[in-house]
Amino acid sequence: MSSSERSSEPATPAPAPPRNDRLLRALRRQPVDRTPVWIMRQAGRYLPEYRELRSRVPSILELLGEPELAARITLQPVRRFELDAAILFSDILVVPEVMDLGLYFEEGEGPRFRHPVRTPAQVEALPVPGPEAYPKVAQTVRRVLEELDGSLPLIGFAGSPWTLAAYVLEGRGGGEFGTARALAYQEPDLVHGLLRKLSRGVVAFLQAQLHAGVHALQIFDTWGGLLSHRGWEEFSLAYMRQVVDQIRQSHPRVPVTLYGRNTAGRLEQLAATGCDCLSLDWSVDMGRARRQTGGEVALQGNLDPVALHAPPEELRRQVAATLASYGRGPGHIFNLGHGVAPDVDPEQVQRMIRAVQELSPPYHAVKS
Amino acid sequence: MSSSERSSEPATPAPAPPRNDRLLRALRRQPVDRTPVWIMRQAGRYLPEYRELRSRVPSILELLGEPELAARITLQPVRRFELDAAILFSDILVVPEVMDLGLYFEEGEGPRFRHPVRTPAQVEALPVPGPEAYPKVAQTVRRVLEELDGSLPLIGFAGSPWTLAAYVLEGRGGGEFGTARALAYQEPDLVHGLLRKLSRGVVAFLQAQLHAGVHALQIFDTWGGLLSHRGWEEFSLAYMRQVVDQIRQSHPRVPVTLYGRNTAGRLEQLAATGCDCLSLDWSVDMGRARRQTGGEVALQGNLDPVALHAPPEELRRQVAATLASYGRGPGHIFNLGHGVAPDVDPEQVQRMIRAVQELSPPYHAVKS
Repeated sequence: MSSSERSSEPATPAPAPPRNDRLLRALRRQPVDRTPVWIMRQAGRYLPEYRELRSRVPSILELLGEPELAARITLQPVRRFELDAAILFSDILVVPEVMDLGLYFEEGEGPRFRHPVRTPAQVEALPVPGPEAYPKVAQTVRRVLEELDGSLPLIGFAGSPWTLAAYVLEGRGGGEFGTARALAYQEPDLVHGLLRKLSRGVVAFLQAQLHAGVHALQIFDTWGGLLSHRGWEEFSLAYMRQVVDQIRQSHPRVPVTLYGRNTAGRLEQLAATGCDCLSLDWSVDMGRARRQTGGEVALQGNLDPVALHAPPEELRRQVAATLASYGRGPGHIFNLGHGVAPDVDPEQVQRMIRAVQELSPPYHAVKS
Repeated sequence: MSSSERSSEPATPAPAPPRNDRLLRALRRQPVDRTPVWIMRQAGRYLPEYRELRSRVPSILELLGEPELAARITLQPVRRFELDAAILFSDILVVPEVMDLGLYFEEGEGPRFRHPVRTPAQVEALPVPGPEAYPKVAQTVRRVLEELDGSLPLIGFAGSPWTLAAYVLEGRGGGEFGTARALAYQEPDLVHGLLRKLSRGVVAFLQAQLHAGVHALQIFDTWGGLLSHRGWEEFSLAYMRQVVDQIRQSHPRVPVTLYGRNTAGRLEQLAATGCDCLSLDWSVDMGRARRQTGGEVALQGNLDPVALHAPPEELRRQVAATLASYGRGPGHIFNLGHGVAPDVDPEQVQRMIRAVQELSPPYHAVKS
């Protein structure tokens, strides 16, 4: 996926609302018949049909370079389960990949970068590709939308600038990003310079998806929780706010969700970015989160991903407890508090979805 | 450290308050001249004198079996720095070690257990040793107190029952304890049975330290943050409350501090255990935590451990910001938000301590 490959296709106009509009209505806190449900990493290794397709290509990057395959993977979970949204199959690291940082994957070790950014000259030299640098992503989105044929909404996504910076500064994932976090204290100007460029890259990546027609966006601030409160405000929140602002300017009606881990003490600040929805990790008390954000935003989540290893009756109780913790009324999107793990039995995912469908309508019934 | 080794010495009466009583006063939210400071893991690998002593014995368990050596290590940081407390050099896994679970350490891999607990029969068979099962710990405490000779307070500690259960169920540390967390959903009775026994073990371990004369206690709920909010209330908070209650009954005047990671949404519940102080990780906004707990408890923390890699002026600014975030008045104990890392330069620790000493008095000055 090289930035010299330019897409010559014109931007697609925003698609008509999908026939199943539960997700989009819930994101806007409008009434729905039942709580919509989708699953972070729903197109992933826990599905045998994913593993089958994945085994045909040597690396995830090559898979993402094949829009036909990426589209099929995107569609796998919505064909198997009665989900209320599809989410684009892609990777947050596509942005630094397009910025020529030498992304590669070490078997069983997670992502690595051949050229971690450590000097002002490296930041200076970084290209900032525009939306046209993501032709394969745009093709994948269009292919998925064709196949969905107006049935379901498609969610696009990106990593937060800080989350991408953590990988790019560290040169790898998998740990607690000690080098990246130390650089924020040692070389704040360098880190801010990198974050400015990554923010533009994130906006371009999201614009590419929006131009191709995605209905909603989610931004993953996966590693913001590793920063001190002050550090998070300075190095993560400020840049997420910029990204949300710029998306708002070009696409004022596309709902934006922010996901983070360890955000229980940061909810009001996240809501004040102007986003539409907060996606909560499983450690957060959803009822408390709802009281704290006072109906300003929708809330997504937050079943413990480990609950998918519970016996069926206990899984159902956990789904019930999650629905009860949000309570009555619109504005809840059911999801896990983090991505579904590779060792989960798809039958359990089926049970979880069915439980949401069966147990959530009373929370939306109009009071007589 | 075998449970068949019984200490024949009588319990030592509670020691007189130390001459430097800043820590004990701050824990009780009484006025002090400046903010007291100590450092989690202050006796540790970042000190060359620690590495020298550590290299003389093949494993940490053998080190802990030598009260003379453990006492010397406890005293190393208070001899090098002007700290306001010593903390016993020991390990939270001493409790499951004494319960015959086959603790060992794999080089570079963290702790392992030869006999992870997975069946009701194993829980049933677990011995619950009393305070007399920790003679080496008691000897270490007495030796340290002799050497301190009334100059400084000595802090004792234990892991929370859930944190110990996480290791014992998983059979090892180092990850996100997926097996242990799944067992809480799959076999809640088994896990509760284990937690009841571990709670008694934790109380015994703390009693051994109290009988030998420690001045204050800290309980580390290091892995409670990995549980869902409901799971944490059921599997961690409930047992910490029991431990605090039992310590209160035998030692009503010994201050108890609770430490956890990812606790920003759980502060009121932690404060309601009846503890004296909450030790906050670096992600928490201390000012907000103080408002939320409304002066019910003292607060400890919460400098980002990574800030010790900052240039000296930036480190000083971070210390200043941490002091400012708590604000004026008593009830703050300066500390890191997590243990000091092995790669930290001791000079930086010195600078941090000096900055607390120099910058904190104005926060305690009586208004005229």
